[in-house]
Amino acid sequence: MDDQKSGQVKPHQNRVHQFRVCALCVCSPGVVRGRRAHQGGRPVAVRGRRALQQALLLAVVTPSAGLSLDTVREFLTREEDTIVFSLIERARYPLNRPAYDPIHLGDGDGPGRRLNASFAELFIRESEAVQAKAGRYQSLQESPFFAYRVPFTLAPPYNFTRELYPAAAFVNVNDAIWSLYFNELLPLLAKNGDDGNYAVTVDSDLACLQVLSRRINYGRYVAEVKFKGDQQTYASLIQAKDRDALMKLLTSEAQEDVVKRRVEKKATVFGQSITSDGPIETGVNNSSGTTFKVDPSVVYKLYDQWVIPLTKQVEVEYLLHRLD
Amino acid sequence: MDDQKSGQVKPHQNRVHQFRVCALCVCSPGVVRGRRAHQGGRPVAVRGRRALQQALLLAVVTPSAGLSLDTVREFLTREEDTIVFSLIERARYPLNRPAYDPIHLGDGDGPGRRLNASFAELFIRESEAVQAKAGRYQSLQESPFFAYRVPFTLAPPYNFTRELYPAAAFVNVNDAIWSLYFNELLPLLAKNGDDGNYAVTVDSDLACLQVLSRRINYGRYVAEVKFKGDQQTYASLIQAKDRDALMKLLTSEAQEDVVKRRVEKKATVFGQSITSDGPIETGVNNSSGTTFKVDPSVVYKLYDQWVIPLTKQVEVEYLLHRLD
Repeated sequence: MDDQKSGQVKPHQNRVHQFRVCALCVCSPGVVRGRRAHQGGRPVAVRGRRALQQALLLAVVTPSAGLSLDTVREFLTREEDTIVFSLIERARYPLNRPAYDPIHLGDGDGPGRRLNASFAELFIRESEAVQAKAGRYQSLQESPFFAYRVPFTLAPPYNFTRELYPAAAFVNVNDAIWSLYFNELLPLLAKNGDDGNYAVTVDSDLACLQVLSRRINYGRYVAEVKFKGDQQTYASLIQAKDRDALMKLLTSEAQEDVVKRRVEKKATVFGQSITSDGPIETGVNNSSGTTFKVDPSVVYKLYDQWVIPLTKQVEVEYLLHRLD
Repeated sequence: MDDQKSGQVKPHQNRVHQFRVCALCVCSPGVVRGRRAHQGGRPVAVRGRRALQQALLLAVVTPSAGLSLDTVREFLTREEDTIVFSLIERARYPLNRPAYDPIHLGDGDGPGRRLNASFAELFIRESEAVQAKAGRYQSLQESPFFAYRVPFTLAPPYNFTRELYPAAAFVNVNDAIWSLYFNELLPLLAKNGDDGNYAVTVDSDLACLQVLSRRINYGRYVAEVKFKGDQQTYASLIQAKDRDALMKLLTSEAQEDVVKRRVEKKATVFGQSITSDGPIETGVNNSSGTTFKVDPSVVYKLYDQWVIPLTKQVEVEYLLHRLD
């Protein structure tokens, strides 16, 4: 009740846990085993898999012709546009608070009341379940917020390239993303108000969550590329479990500054009002009184405080499992 | 089979028909009655409703404080941004042809094979069903591509303002939008290729379809505002069923030209590659060799050939039912 009163969105026990699958959780088997169960329907002998991984220590696992520092950077840069678009779209709608609070669900003994879940959580669960059935999570680039064990009966078959080291591929920080999105970011994006368009509103929340999850958890790919580029250095730090040294090795403040300034500029450019003949805003300086659909400084803050630190957290955790 | 061979996406018999509910269709009762059945769960006595509508001839029906020519224009201008964003997002992915062809569905006797429906159609059906359950179509601004009769058990209750004339509110051109999107627009947006990300790709198709549907079918609101602004003129043309004169009265070529140039400019601004320090493109002239994520001329064409003509078609059809 305290969480409800304070407007805080509490991670639900059935959500996929960050970093590892909780032994107590009803959703286990979690991301890795759940996803693997989809692939051909064969259960994986975990003990045998681990032995194989030991043998592959430091070896290149299913090398992808496509994965390089350049392609990784290109992907992350393109994701910035999608993130800014999705935030601008969410900002179209008022806060619509009843969508986020279990006490505002309709009468009766619906699933929301039974689970003590908000409309937003129910909607995201059901939407993700359809997407799971459609094979969205066959691609390791996509990590669901909730665990699903549905066969992907809808999807045409496709063999995805495996670019991640299997024992580390499960790493994700979706719980942290869920929490930061609803508790920190959303109040900065949406104006107070209630227009009743809860389904459309929460659908746009889901779009934000999905791209933030894909972008931040892409840290696994970043780490894989960096690891491959300097295996000896990384291996010694991983074996020493030296988180701080790994974090330092992964950090480039100059590059992070470029990214933060670029996303702020994207918010300025994509969030301006465009007329068929008028001038186009070219700077991030808002002294002219121009209003943007999303405050560019919020997007700067999103990257500065959450996207970049969480991505590096994913990178470190991935690396710590890279020799498992 | 001819349709499959030619790559044409065929409207499915169970989709909501444009303009009226087909008596043969398994989906009937259609949009109006289907939606009304949701609202409180009470069946509507159609004959009694018609008698009431006759009595309300020329009367103002549930006047909305918010609906005016200014608010309508503002809405349509804002939708342009959403349309351009959604097209840019779809253009991220290759064409992914297997997603659109029933013969590419997996082995077995799945729902796609039974319905002779593509993965795209199945995915959109299931996603829309979740959104119907979540109350998306309580708002008359949203028109589903398929009909659903699910109670919206997920959604918190909300009383929407009714801004449309009930007997004309069902008008929509979703069949035409479905067809133009898959057969005309998509091949102009997406490059050939197949990366297997069918769920993500078709999810972005759905986003395009939903905003195009909302934008084009918003013609009902445009028509309502114009009707209220000059009831005598419109009433005489409606009673004479003079489509041509109505179309002429609704057309402003100068205004349409402004809109087409503005959306082309939006595609230029939102679809450029932005660096933290580089210049920002300010013109629609592409002679500098700049590449955009979606060709701005495609967005011009979209509005010129489809969005504007279809919107006016919706306006005329709405008006022809405005005195029913």
